[in-house]
This record gives sequence, structure tokens and C-alpha cells, in this order.
Amino acid sequence: MQVGTAYSDGMGRVTRRTPALRIDVTDPNRPTVRTRPDTVTVEEPLEIRVGETALSVTMRTPGDDFDLVVGFLLTEGLIGAADDVHHLMHCLDADEGGAPTYNVVDVTLRDGVAPPPPDQARRFYTTSSCGVCGKASIDAIRTSGRYAVGADTMVIAPHVLAGLPDLLREHQKVFDRTGGLHAAGLFTRDGSLLAVREDVGRHNAVDKVIGWAARDERLPLTGHVLVVSGRASFELTQKAYMAGLPVLAAVSAPSSLAVELACEVGLTLVGFVRAPRLTVYSGSQRLGIPAVG
Amino acid sequence: MQVGTAYSDGMGRVTRRTPALRIDVTDPNRPTVRTRPDTVTVEEPLEIRVGETALSVTMRTPGDDFDLVVGFLLTEGLIGAADDVHHLMHCLDADEGGAPTYNVVDVTLRDGVAPPPPDQARRFYTTSSCGVCGKASIDAIRTSGRYAVGADTMVIAPHVLAGLPDLLREHQKVFDRTGGLHAAGLFTRDGSLLAVREDVGRHNAVDKVIGWAARDERLPLTGHVLVVSGRASFELTQKAYMAGLPVLAAVSAPSSLAVELACEVGLTLVGFVRAPRLTVYSGSQRLGIPAVG
Repeated sequence: MQVGTAYSDGMGRVTRRTPALRIDVTDPNRPTVRTRPDTVTVEEPLEIRVGETALSVTMRTPGDDFDLVVGFLLTEGLIGAADDVHHLMHCLDADEGGAPTYNVVDVTLRDGVAPPPPDQARRFYTTSSCGVCGKASIDAIRTSGRYAVGADTMVIAPHVLAGLPDLLREHQKVFDRTGGLHAAGLFTRDGSLLAVREDVGRHNAVDKVIGWAARDERLPLTGHVLVVSGRASFELTQKAYMAGLPVLAAVSAPSSLAVELACEVGLTLVGFVRAPRLTVYSGSQRLGIPAVG
Repeated sequence: MQVGTAYSDGMGRVTRRTPALRIDVTDPNRPTVRTRPDTVTVEEPLEIRVGETALSVTMRTPGDDFDLVVGFLLTEGLIGAADDVHHLMHCLDADEGGAPTYNVVDVTLRDGVAPPPPDQARRFYTTSSCGVCGKASIDAIRTSGRYAVGADTMVIAPHVLAGLPDLLREHQKVFDRTGGLHAAGLFTRDGSLLAVREDVGRHNAVDKVIGWAARDERLPLTGHVLVVSGRASFELTQKAYMAGLPVLAAVSAPSSLAVELACEVGLTLVGFVRAPRLTVYSGSQRLGIPAVG
């Protein structure tokens, strides 16, 4: 994969200072007010173009844009491997003052790779057999997945898994300053951190981690664990599965459809991972525990 | 507005029981395992059709689907008032067993209301003058807004505002059981709760609250406050503005673009609302405090 070298990867705009008033109402009749600039997380639109066609606009935190794009294309099933991308570059779109915004990434696919269908957003959620429902969404993901996640025999010790969110938090550089970012972290089964990414969008943080791994030729992510700082939705479970990850661990709750998808594809889904406790919803054999239910 | 009466509004599928294993690793060498069913939040796709055309698919928690649809159409600027919708009904799409899924809502617009443009997703983020950037996103929202939010002279006492998240939490019925839902609440300036909605998607919770208000002929929401359980993104700030809400209060951090949009349109944006403290990013005059910065 080639990368346009004339432009940055959008780094350096992760946080911004803004005026703010801190109010304390401990005494309701005499609130105290302090003026102090606050650091907020940057949110900017990113448009992904394939060829000359706009595919998607996502609100994201700038930085690691090429990883985000590759991770998005992969986990949505629009490409099968990072190699399917021939070239990536930031377009020279400019703001009103003429400065480049680095908010458009243009993707050139490798010869022979089919461009995304025009209506790809609907693709995953509907099939002709079943209208619009969770089952159809799961079937669509399962048939578009490339990796046999269910066959992954890796095991991670429960106490190692329970400690991963704390490791993730220690490596969240921006959260400490802004309190405003979701994080995703990629770990080995012995608990070593390989990559952590933060973003205003939880799906973007996951795409950035998976895109990094794909561009580093690490897919499928057999034997690895993805940890997310929030909840486990269907979308995040889909992304883990599409990258060949056998374990998804979330600090907060999973949704019903995340649990159903994980069960269907043989992925280990763990929620409420808060040492010393965690809750396993599927694939408990990878924690050395006989099957759930 | 007419509503298809043959079908429910998708209620009764908000949570689901699922097998789960609770693990405790207090002693890493001897983890304890308890089998206990867990209650998870239901997540299902909802397709919004206008006429016969699919407009959007969102993953949402079933229930209040008609409010969700009206709120979505309004806050995305696709309709100007609830009256623009002539008829709403759940399609009779069925799952594999032939049971209706209630996952498609078909919208019939009033005669003379223009259907949404085919590529509405991109509309808000790009203008010809400015490529793709936050400024263009803000300009697009500002010009599509119908209400003079900046002219709203309402005032809410800081200690009243600081107490709203606790009130919201008290009314979150599902969160207590699942820990898995975002909430949005609509309050008067004296702190009375008018409506609270919960959803796996934070934007859905906001759309449901605003759609309820619109169908109850309460728009614009002059003098009201929207409280959200998480962070304040650009998207949520957009939705508040489009409903004519002068104050958006978030339990967690705002993003840079949320702050910029709030400043531009004269909306009061408050973050980290955790009694006895809160942080004001714009429009502090509505808390009886001179302007920020």
C-alpha cells in the first residue's frame, strides 16, 4: 500500500483549548465561578472517498486517519485485506482561509478489487429472506467474514483479562486531559498492549486499532484480545469478528445483538470487565471455563 | 399526523435475559464462577422509509419508534414540523418464523413536503465553499435551523441545572437493570422533568425525546433544557439546536465541534454536570453569569 507522503496523517489536532467557566454550587445561593481554559477533544468530519465517490462521512478525532480508513473498509467488509488498497492520500481540500483541512481521504483500490456497492449502508442489515431484523444483520456479517474466529483455541487467564482495562486507561493520553474520548486497545493473550487509540467515536477508535494491525500485516488477529472503554454494541462486535479477533472485552454492558452475534460466530464476549470481576456472555472456554448456559 | 393503529409502537422488547457467567478473580489462582442469567438491553435495526425509499438504518432499542422517526427527521432538517408527516406505520416485515419484526417504519409525508434528497448524509458536512470541515458543518446546521435559539432569554439557576442528572438517573428504568443505556431528558427551567428516554444509541435517545415533544406540539422548545447522560458531540448539539432548545447539559465532556456549534448559534452548552460542579462552555448568561471568555 502506498501513502501520499506530501501530507501529514492528520496528527497534532487531537485537543484544543477553549474558554470555560467552572461553577461550584455547594452553596446554592452563592455559586462560585472560576474562569479557566479547558482542553476539549477535537471532533472533525472525515470523508472517505473511493475513487471519486464519497463513501462515508464520520465525525472523528483527527490523527491516524489512514488506519481509520483501512480499518473501516475492512470491518465493513468492503475490502478483504489491507493489500486491496493501492494508495491512500489526504485530498487538498481547504478551509475558508485556504489552509488544508486534511478531512478527506481518497482511496485508490488495487486493480481488480470491486468498488463498494452504492448502497452499502443497508447491506448489512437486510436480507431478502428476513426483512430487517437482528438475525438478518447477524447472517450478513457471518457470511461476509473471512476468518474462522470460532476455531481459535486461544486461552487467556481470567485475572489477566480483568486487568486489561486498567492497562488501557494508563495508556490513554488524551482522556486524562479531556475526559472526552473512547479508547480501544489491542492486547496479546498474555496481557501485553500492542496498540491503543482514542477517538470521540467508539467505532473510530476500534477502526484505528484494526486498521493499524491490518497495515502492519497482522490480520487475522488470531490469539488477540480487543478491549473497549465503553459498551459492546453490535457494530463493535462486528468489527472484532471481521478482523479475526477471538475475544472482545468491554468495560461496560453488551447489547442483546452483540451477545447474539458473538454466540453465532464463536467469539468470546466479556462485559463489565472491572477487576476483580467480569461477566462472560459467550465463548467462556477461552477463559478456561466450560460453556455458558 | 396519523399513526398506523394495527401495530404496536415496538414496546415490550426493551430488555432480554441471556445466560452469563460472573467471574471473580480476587484470588487469581482460584477464580470463582457463578452462572446467573443477565439482563441486557435489546438492540435491533430500525429502517426508516419515506414513501418506498429507505432513508436510514439505525441500531436502536425498540420502543417509541414513531417518536424516534419524527425526531430524526426533524433534527436532521428533513422536515420542518411534525405536521409535515402525514402518516406513520410499522411495515409488516417478518422474521424467519413469520412474526412481524416491527423494524421498519414507513413515513408518508404531507402533500407538498419535499422528500429527502437522495444523498442527505453528506449534506450537513460539506459546502462548496469550504470542502469538508467543522466550519462547513456548522454553517450547514445554522442555515437549516428554523428557530432563533440565540434570542431565547431564559435563565436557569446553576444549582437547579447541577441537580438535573440525578433526576434523570432516578427516572432511568432500564439502566438500573442493564447498565447499558444512554438517556436523554427534557426539563423545564425550574427543573421539572417532562420526558426521559433510554436507548443503546445516544442520538436515538435524543431523537425520541425531541420527537415526543414535536408530536405533542411543543416545538420550539424555548425555555427548556436537554440533559444527556454521556458526552456532548456535534450531532447531539445539532439536534438540540434544531429543536429550538436553548440549553444542552451533558454529564461528560463536550467535543470541540460541539462547543463551536453552540457558540455560533447561541446555545448554552454545559459539560461535566456533576453536582455540586459544572463547566460552562458557551451561553453562560442563561445561568445568570456574564459571558465566557
